[in-house]
Amino acid sequence: MQFEEKTIQRQSIFKGHIFEVAVDDVELPDGGLAKRELIFHKGAVCVLALTPEGKLILVKQYRKAIERLSIEIPAGKLEIGEAGSEEAAALRELEEETGYTTENLTLLYDFYSAIGFCNERLRLYLADDLVRVENPRPKDADEFIELMEVSLEEALSLIASGDICDAKTIMAIQALQLLRK
Amino acid sequence: MQFEEKTIQRQSIFKGHIFEVAVDDVELPDGGLAKRELIFHKGAVCVLALTPEGKLILVKQYRKAIERLSIEIPAGKLEIGEAGSEEAAALRELEEETGYTTENLTLLYDFYSAIGFCNERLRLYLADDLVRVENPRPKDADEFIELMEVSLEEALSLIASGDICDAKTIMAIQALQLLRK
Repeated sequence: MQFEEKTIQRQSIFKGHIFEVAVDDVELPDGGLAKRELIFHKGAVCVLALTPEGKLILVKQYRKAIERLSIEIPAGKLEIGEAGSEEAAALRELEEETGYTTENLTLLYDFYSAIGFCNERLRLYLADDLVRVENPRPKDADEFIELMEVSLEEALSLIASGDICDAKTIMAIQALQLLRK
Repeated sequence: MQFEEKTIQRQSIFKGHIFEVAVDDVELPDGGLAKRELIFHKGAVCVLALTPEGKLILVKQYRKAIERLSIEIPAGKLEIGEAGSEEAAALRELEEETGYTTENLTLLYDFYSAIGFCNERLRLYLADDLVRVENPRPKDADEFIELMEVSLEEALSLIASGDICDAKTIMAIQALQLLRK
């Protein structure tokens, strides 16, 4: 079976700092035509970070897209030139957001967040054996966050209550459940 | 601690069929100003569908955003007027894409796919005790898909090979791993 959608024409709609938007005219496998609305994103990293006590580090922050607070694992976008250096980006975000670092970083999953319309690619790392950094790199100026350290049971309660409501964090917590089983 | 970002002004950039794009000027908790690039989406449903033999139903399809094939659980966007009828939407997508239905639908997770910039809200359902529909509703005209039925072990191999590379499908497979443990 043939699946590919051939690009006939791309219309650029928006070039932002976080993402770009385009609409493609495509030719379907049966020769029909369709439009595809697309978001292009540079990619990001996120970290399942475990303290020496076995607690999970979470970050509480405001999310404008949903106009509410959200509790998530540490994460951040790749910066320019960081493609191919995702591990370094994960360590940077971990240090900036939590003040911890590690020599024990393992890639758990490499995935797309919203594959139907967006190419944002995320890497989820396990950061074990965390150690405190003496003078950690500062957070971004427009980041207002609050750190939490929770047990697996507390993390599951935060999913049940809806305080944790994002895909990458639920994936990380399920991964931790699987590690602990 | 104060987190909220107050909207000063919203600039509408694009109104598409799949999503809308806006840029907000916001006031940060410390009085500073920032811009937030945002995607608004109507929401979607996805289904961890298990055949009577305990196999997982997957859908192979082309994804224009990443210009490649992807293997995913059945999923679809909410249609107009379907907010609040997510279970009906899940059954519709299940029937259209797989030809199965069920009386046994359980909400596993209610989450945002890309919370940093997008409000797409997804519900992941477990559909157990599947039964075949005699004359299933047809697929959307621009959908070219191929069905697969795989064991949990095969699904894990498809993650390892990168053929499964999207968040909702990995989350569903983790959930199945946890159910089977």
